[in-house]
Amino acid sequence: MRMIVKQLEYMYIQRSFSFVRRSLSITTTTTTQFISTTKTTNSNYSYYSSKSKETDMSQQAFSRAGLEDLMKRRFFITPAFEIYGGVAGLYDYGPPGCAIKANLINLWRQHFVINEDMLEVDCTSLTPEVVLKTSGHVAKFADFMVKDEITKQCYRADHLLEQHIDKLLEDKKITAERKEELTHVRAKAGDYGQSQLTEALKKYGVKCPDTGNAITEPYPFNLMFQTQIGPSGQLVGFMRPETAQGIFVNFKRLLDYNANKLPFAAAQIGNSFRNEIAPRSGLLRVREFTMAEIEHFVNPHDKSHPKFEEVANIKANLLTSEAQDGDKKVVEMTFGDAVKQGTINNQTLAYFMCRTQLFLHTIGIKPERMRFRQHQQNEMAHYASDCWDAEIHTSYGWIECVGHADRSCYDLTVHSDASRIPLVAFEEFKDGPKTIEVVDVKINKSKMGSTFKKDAKAPMDYLEGLATKMEEALKLRDELDAAGSATIVVNDQGYNITKEMVSFTQATKKLTGQSFAPHVIEPSFGLGRIIYSLLEHSYSVRPATEEDKAEDANKKLDRAVLSLPAIIAPVKTSVLPLTQSEALAPFVQQITRLLKEQGISSKVDESGVAIGRRYARTDEIGIPFAITIDFTTVEDQTVTLRERDTMIQVRVPLQQVATTIKQLSENTLQWTQVANTFPAHKF
Amino acid sequence: MRMIVKQLEYMYIQRSFSFVRRSLSITTTTTTQFISTTKTTNSNYSYYSSKSKETDMSQQAFSRAGLEDLMKRRFFITPAFEIYGGVAGLYDYGPPGCAIKANLINLWRQHFVINEDMLEVDCTSLTPEVVLKTSGHVAKFADFMVKDEITKQCYRADHLLEQHIDKLLEDKKITAERKEELTHVRAKAGDYGQSQLTEALKKYGVKCPDTGNAITEPYPFNLMFQTQIGPSGQLVGFMRPETAQGIFVNFKRLLDYNANKLPFAAAQIGNSFRNEIAPRSGLLRVREFTMAEIEHFVNPHDKSHPKFEEVANIKANLLTSEAQDGDKKVVEMTFGDAVKQGTINNQTLAYFMCRTQLFLHTIGIKPERMRFRQHQQNEMAHYASDCWDAEIHTSYGWIECVGHADRSCYDLTVHSDASRIPLVAFEEFKDGPKTIEVVDVKINKSKMGSTFKKDAKAPMDYLEGLATKMEEALKLRDELDAAGSATIVVNDQGYNITKEMVSFTQATKKLTGQSFAPHVIEPSFGLGRIIYSLLEHSYSVRPATEEDKAEDANKKLDRAVLSLPAIIAPVKTSVLPLTQSEALAPFVQQITRLLKEQGISSKVDESGVAIGRRYARTDEIGIPFAITIDFTTVEDQTVTLRERDTMIQVRVPLQQVATTIKQLSENTLQWTQVANTFPAHKF
Repeated sequence: MRMIVKQLEYMYIQRSFSFVRRSLSITTTTTTQFISTTKTTNSNYSYYSSKSKETDMSQQAFSRAGLEDLMKRRFFITPAFEIYGGVAGLYDYGPPGCAIKANLINLWRQHFVINEDMLEVDCTSLTPEVVLKTSGHVAKFADFMVKDEITKQCYRADHLLEQHIDKLLEDKKITAERKEELTHVRAKAGDYGQSQLTEALKKYGVKCPDTGNAITEPYPFNLMFQTQIGPSGQLVGFMRPETAQGIFVNFKRLLDYNANKLPFAAAQIGNSFRNEIAPRSGLLRVREFTMAEIEHFVNPHDKSHPKFEEVANIKANLLTSEAQDGDKKVVEMTFGDAVKQGTINNQTLAYFMCRTQLFLHTIGIKPERMRFRQHQQNEMAHYASDCWDAEIHTSYGWIECVGHADRSCYDLTVHSDASRIPLVAFEEFKDGPKTIEVVDVKINKSKMGSTFKKDAKAPMDYLEGLATKMEEALKLRDELDAAGSATIVVNDQGYNITKEMVSFTQATKKLTGQSFAPHVIEPSFGLGRIIYSLLEHSYSVRPATEEDKAEDANKKLDRAVLSLPAIIAPVKTSVLPLTQSEALAPFVQQITRLLKEQGISSKVDESGVAIGRRYARTDEIGIPFAITIDFTTVEDQTVTLRERDTMIQVRVPLQQVATTIKQLSENTLQWTQVANTFPAHKF
Repeated sequence: MRMIVKQLEYMYIQRSFSFVRRSLSITTTTTTQFISTTKTTNSNYSYYSSKSKETDMSQQAFSRAGLEDLMKRRFFITPAFEIYGGVAGLYDYGPPGCAIKANLINLWRQHFVINEDMLEVDCTSLTPEVVLKTSGHVAKFADFMVKDEITKQCYRADHLLEQHIDKLLEDKKITAERKEELTHVRAKAGDYGQSQLTEALKKYGVKCPDTGNAITEPYPFNLMFQTQIGPSGQLVGFMRPETAQGIFVNFKRLLDYNANKLPFAAAQIGNSFRNEIAPRSGLLRVREFTMAEIEHFVNPHDKSHPKFEEVANIKANLLTSEAQDGDKKVVEMTFGDAVKQGTINNQTLAYFMCRTQLFLHTIGIKPERMRFRQHQQNEMAHYASDCWDAEIHTSYGWIECVGHADRSCYDLTVHSDASRIPLVAFEEFKDGPKTIEVVDVKINKSKMGSTFKKDAKAPMDYLEGLATKMEEALKLRDELDAAGSATIVVNDQGYNITKEMVSFTQATKKLTGQSFAPHVIEPSFGLGRIIYSLLEHSYSVRPATEEDKAEDANKKLDRAVLSLPAIIAPVKTSVLPLTQSEALAPFVQQITRLLKEQGISSKVDESGVAIGRRYARTDEIGIPFAITIDFTTVEDQTVTLRERDTMIQVRVPLQQVATTIKQLSENTLQWTQVANTFPAHKF
């Protein structure tokens, strides 16, 4: 295949999908949590002390090149627009990747939306500027960029600094002091602001790594894709950089849908878009990606969770903020203890962390390769009270896959202010209605109008505003009573108010409750990262068996296996007639029909290839079961059912095989039960 | 709620969702099929002659205002960014709308991808310019726009012309001749090109309808949202206007995934974006929408379908191209006959039309309000051989919801040419390998290089190209043999070629088969339009029963019902304790747990409202079943299970109710069976 590199932006597609192998760094955006990765490949975080040896061994065995070859060869994923040379940061999912993603989304919907009674919404990606100005994205959703002075090629400033320091650190003669300084700068580069980056790039004499040319000073580059909505060219819009804003702007309708009751959670699954300066690391940093976000709205004074007791005894691996500054150790503790000890801020945050953990375990993420890392103070936005990232360990290091943030009332408040529509909830007082004192302000508008003419609005607004400022109102009343007039100052302008213009009456008012801006706790999933991590955790290579060798003596016999749980596997079963005999063909048709009736995806392989090779083909794309039709089938209407990981084969009546696989694929039946129920296949 | 209209582009949100009520017109794009609607509200198409009376009656009863009120009140859908005044053509789905959409997508995947063994892909929406230049969208995906000369407000030219003519037609004194002329222009306006529109707008003196100002001449406005990919600003990108291109550019990988065999179908579900000039009619013409597209690749010489016999006897309502020019009558015939008589071009096209029809019937579209309309010659792109739109009848008239087009080899060919990567399939000759004569061209490159210097490439390419042009090659050889030299002309430039520069040898070559560009048959679904049509078909108002009146004598008693099939319904069951007694509460918990274990979405209503009102609340959002817990439940562990449309109530053991609803919701059990199996509830 010939590649045509059209423009600088086009990425050169290497046949081996060679991901850049260095560590990733934390993004520097401050307004929203960003699905990002932490720079731990070169770090000394002991991510799971008790099992580190075992994990190291499994790490040694993992071949990223092998997985990448498989992903490419079997079309899990491919660079988008590959025939035109590709575009950096854009990937397409082929049939197995797409099916895994669809299964993941369905399970997510089951696990969160249905099980937790969430209100799912589906909002547009096109977003008018006003919304993203309000959220802070227009001003602050940026990375720092430098350009090659000559070629004008763009680079991320922090990446260049990190790469440069990595090179400096290779020098074996550097002093311990210098090494410590460099290591420190390397670790902090991702968090640097514009001036710190400018200084550091100068200090270490960083040049363009590709040309050796000088680079520009770093400047912020907004990561949103901009466009225009409508034909007039006057309404600036952006492709949303996260799905959350669609939930916030719909808060009032959601609250109404929930019969005005708190707490409730809204959820959204959809695509987001970030115009990364220099995307790399394959699926881990892309320009268009699917997120699943939850916004759980609570009363700020009560962040308990009614189902917390159900999860309190479940253990988690926690890397606290303190530990990151200190011994770097992950501690294992229950969610109950973590909340009790104040490690995790509140029950609701902890409840969602646990639900995330259960979800990740269910899809096949290895428990010992998952942890929660708490944000350090300087990583969090000023309004956030606690943030924990679910991180998954991969060959790239620890990858942030799910953020969990207590964002306080920030989002609803900024949108209330900007839209002038109060995004608040109302709560009745628990101990019955309260009587409060208020001031009734009566303004003589004609008098004020004739006195102040076109300037009357400002003092009138001021006087009306005194209705909620009892003390000030009474002071002014006393002054008017005493002197007949008084001067008020509004916007640096004095107005002489007379007794005739306004009267204040004290009254009582019965309140049944009060309005408040709910706080929001936000779990935010990056599905592409989870899928990539899952593929790494599921991938292994099985040495050839004696049987394989007998069948296929001349071929490369190491066989890749993707041990994906049946509920996530792209195709649930293969259907394999043992030979191309015409006697077996009708059974293939009958079985595929039964499977389709049950909604089970299947893949028929009627090629004349040896059965062991055909098993290997289905193992490597993660198909968990294989139905083999042989000559015994013709006699007794049974088939062989083989499981991918145990390679156990049992004999199942043809009429039961589809329903059995359906139950296995829905997690309502376990393979061990099947293996114990049906007789073993006799070879 | 206060609305702030920020800019012209912002749509004013009316509380009643008042959709513009006039008919929609066909879009004028020529490069791709466009989910569009036909202008039949004012036309005389007899859309279903045999049942027209019955349908007319049901039409009379339908209240669009009632449905719109329901959609708004129960948050099926809402204008996006409503708190900021909204943006025309952008809508968000609230919880019930979102759930209906998710169920529709899952069923579509089941019905098409799994049942038809399609290869589903998930490609990016961001698309580099080169792809859409190649597909023709950059040049031709446009509508004609005019602006108010003074206010600069934008309008669609054809819409203004239509509106203007509608007004002229209101004049009761116009002559029959004039009326005929106007009616003709009205009908064709949507198909007019730039010059025809310019002429017609001038001829009829069309002004801006809002201001009476003069308007500009019409000019094409491209409907794609443009952006820039990457930080350099040099790579123009667009949000895709359809999902199909992602499939075409991945053709080679898909063919490889399918073991290089044809035919096969690829499918994609995802969002597309069209910057409509003046969106209107709510969900029917929006700027961001979800499509589900299939590209079925076939050998151009064999468009038979292996499963056609399964559908040949199914009947369809067909409005042929001829009928549209003639008697406007829809004919009912089987797909088998339609192919046999040449009405539908081929089996594969007819097979997909039938699968579409089955899908639409399954989700709840009324068979008598669905038809297939064939494209007329002037609607089709030059390369298309036959197109049929599945149209659904709504209060807006007939709406195009699913296009079915035989697009020949157009898409693969243009991408092959532009990318220089051959997007072809290879087929072995059925009657064994063939031996063909070829010419072996040997070029003396150093001789040509020294003769023509930097101009040598063009004549060398030309001579190499003669390998496949036997006749020309032999003619040149004879000339060289005779004269020792000859002149060839390449790009208007003559080159004098000598005998030393090139030699031609005749040889034979054994071919096992041949490469060809597959044809593609494309069913393309607009999900938003289908959802809106489905809501119209499902909506009815039930007069109050005596029981309702007894319960709730003072309330408005007409009750809206959405008769959505269980498989599509947003929530499958409500859970209703008869009273707020503490004795019933544990059963609510037990039942919701059982339902969640089965993955069944449910909605608990524990309010103290009368049970009839609570049934009405769930009926109007289409919840098909209701589980009522009463004091008999405490005694015998049974509950009442009520069905929404029949209102039949049976008594089901508590432990069986979740599995029963699961089967009902998956279409594997019918309500009549349930009603016959369990005893009726005794009031």
